[in-house]
This record gives sequence, structure tokens and C-alpha cells, in this order.
Amino acid sequence: MTSGTLYGIGLGPGDPDLITLKAARLIAAVPVVAYPTLEAGDSFARSIAAGFVPAGAQELPIPIPMTTDRAPAQAAYDAGAAAIAAHLDAGRDVAVLCEGDPFFYGSFMYLFSRLSGDHRVEVVPGVTSVTACAAVVGQPLSARNEVLTILPCSLHEPELKARIEAASSVAIIKVGRHLNKIRRVLGDLSLIGHAVYVERATLPNECYAPLAEAPEKAPYFSMILVSRGKDPWL
Amino acid sequence: MTSGTLYGIGLGPGDPDLITLKAARLIAAVPVVAYPTLEAGDSFARSIAAGFVPAGAQELPIPIPMTTDRAPAQAAYDAGAAAIAAHLDAGRDVAVLCEGDPFFYGSFMYLFSRLSGDHRVEVVPGVTSVTACAAVVGQPLSARNEVLTILPCSLHEPELKARIEAASSVAIIKVGRHLNKIRRVLGDLSLIGHAVYVERATLPNECYAPLAEAPEKAPYFSMILVSRGKDPWL
Repeated sequence: MTSGTLYGIGLGPGDPDLITLKAARLIAAVPVVAYPTLEAGDSFARSIAAGFVPAGAQELPIPIPMTTDRAPAQAAYDAGAAAIAAHLDAGRDVAVLCEGDPFFYGSFMYLFSRLSGDHRVEVVPGVTSVTACAAVVGQPLSARNEVLTILPCSLHEPELKARIEAASSVAIIKVGRHLNKIRRVLGDLSLIGHAVYVERATLPNECYAPLAEAPEKAPYFSMILVSRGKDPWL
Repeated sequence: MTSGTLYGIGLGPGDPDLITLKAARLIAAVPVVAYPTLEAGDSFARSIAAGFVPAGAQELPIPIPMTTDRAPAQAAYDAGAAAIAAHLDAGRDVAVLCEGDPFFYGSFMYLFSRLSGDHRVEVVPGVTSVTACAAVVGQPLSARNEVLTILPCSLHEPELKARIEAASSVAIIKVGRHLNKIRRVLGDLSLIGHAVYVERATLPNECYAPLAEAPEKAPYFSMILVSRGKDPWL
């Protein structure tokens, strides 16, 4: 078949300098560059890759509704997948720009599930926000035989509490409007002193602080790292 | 002070093309390149970065004993840190080459803990083997409100079993000689059919298979991904 290849391109946490060599090369080479956008048209992924998208590339924005409802989200991914498939069927490679890593809490997986049956797909992994936050803060995430748990903030309070209690090292991601819930849970577990807050890691306006000194409001791209472990080799 | 800067450089999972632009630039620019080696002198990190280390760079191999004993490991990191500190104190920047990400189960943290008090340190995050394995296999790691747990294989069997049972998505890392233990645990949990085995992801000799068809012996750099979740948006 003469179908084009779909590339899911991880762009890393935000600093364009943390794009991989492979990602930079592919973005510069493909004829079609697709990316998710908010309904207003903004695309964080597009902004990370801005310096690498060639002037002549055909751009394919895919509007994704910010919703927890299943039907409109599925419809948005169906439409995006159909638009991408039209390019692939015409023999054109398509790169989908993805914040962080495509398969790590990324929306790319919804395009992947719709397109990988009929098209060649290659996923280029990227630096995740979790290790980027640890690097910015200067705090190791996990050593030797420690367990690392990644927890999305949208979980209900009892589950969050139980999972944090059982973990040695935790990254609590997508904090946003859940900041006060997390403060409450970590307070109940007497872990406020072990927690650090990070927002927009590796971007020019990044900031971080001990959770006790964190701002009152958190953006969606913020994270709390909790570490209780004390590695004996340190 | 005129001290040099210590860079902890994440190199990604093995394919040199997955090095970040920042890492490639820094490795090419610093006067001293340090890296951990096995006692025989081999260094996986050095091999990933081979194409980027300038001919004129001063190289500083740091032999790390493969041991679970605390004293010889601590002595090795003490000696490595002292050798690095001598360069930093002389005003020379030092890049430590790290497989994957420096703060994600990496030995860099033992140098970091010894040197960050007295020297400027910058950590450059890298692509981890976990997202690289997911990309190679073509299987999303974790979506939306799923919990992702990273489990080192060295944990004892009851803890491994309890943690896998409680998790929705699991990456079991550093499989090596623990492969049969993991097979047993996943068999007891009826999860063999949900598990995929990956070794040397992104390297020329990478291989992967459903766990039921995996080889009898696994190298240290191998991983098992287990996923039970079924995201409703797929």
C-alpha cells in the first residue's frame, strides 16, 4: 500500500531544547503537521514545536473539547482521525505533535486507537513532565527498589489518600483545580513537608516551591512531587 | 566562585536519535565527560553518546561495582564525586552521561547528593525506558485518570503481587534474573495475557513479545508492561 506513515511525536515538557533529535528531524521533514487545540485555537504542542515546523508544511489543527463527557470527546477524535486518514490515504506522512510523551497521559492514544489498524504508525517517545519537574526542583524521583506511583488529580479523595499512603514516591499530575483537595489529603497524611509544587516546568515562567508555600491557585500544567524514601546509598 | 557546573545529562533509552537537543549540545561543549562503567570498563551511557563526545574531551570513567552491598557502592560514589569535584573546583564544567533520565532510577543521584551542596548542578531530563518501551510495543501506558505504577523487580514477591493487584497500569522494570518471579506473580493474578515483555527498547537488537512467548532469560535492561485499563474514549 502507498499509505503515508502516522508519527506520534513526543515534544517533551515545554522547553523546545528538550525535543529529541528524532522529533526535530521528523517535524521538519513531514508534509503534514497535526496537533490538538483548545476550542479557542491555542495549542501548547504547536508552541513547543514552533521553531521546527517548516513554513511550507500543511497544518491540521484538531479541536478537542475540554469536557469529561464521553460523546463530544469521541466525536472530536473521530473527526481528527478522519482528517488525518485522508492525508495518509493520499500517501502523505503526518506528524501529530504531542506535549510530553504520546503514550503517557496523552490524547494521541485516541488517534492511535482509531488509525493504527489501517495505517503504519510510529511513536517517538518524549521527555515526560514528571522527570522534567524532578530535574527543575533538583530532587531525585525514585532510586533502586523504590516504587514510583503516578496519580492523576482527578481521582476521588479516598482513592488518592489510600494510594499516596501506600506509595514511597509519588508524582501527582494535572493538579489545576484540585490543588486544595491535594493539600487536604497530604495534610491528613502529615506529608505536606515532603511535598513540592511545580508549575510549567522548563518553560520561561516555571515556578516551584515547597507545597506549604505554593500559590493558592494552580494551572492545569502543575504537579506535586512527594518523596518519603531515604536511599541508603545517598 | 569560579566553580564549574555539573550537568547530569539524560541520554534516553539507547537510540542516540532520542537524545535531546540540549543534551547533544552540552555534551559537545563541556571539557570533561564523566560516566559510570561496569568493572570491566563497559559503559552503556558512553555508547549512547558516542557520536557526540568531542575528540578533545577529557573522559572520566567512574567504575561502579555491581553489588547490593552498601559500603562498596558508597565508596565508589565517594571516589567518583571526588574526581568530579576536582574538575569543578578547577573551573571546568563536567557532564555526567546518564542512561534514560538522571533522576529516574539512575545512579546520578548518588553523585548529585555528594556534589550539589557545594557546586552548581543542572539536570537535563531524558526520555525514560518506560515510555520508550510503550512506544516500541505500540501500547499506550496510561490515560486520563489511570494510575501508573513503576515497580522495580527486586521487590519481594508478596509486595510485587500486592502492588500489581492494586494497579491499573504497571511497568515492571529491571527484569533480568527476576523474570521467573514475575511470571509466577502475574500467573497467580491471571494477568499473563495482559503483559508484554520488552528488551533493549530502541536499540538495534530490541525485541518484544507477549509475556507468554517471551524468552526464558532476560537481560537487565528489560521490562514488562501490564495494562488492564480500558479507556472509554478509545
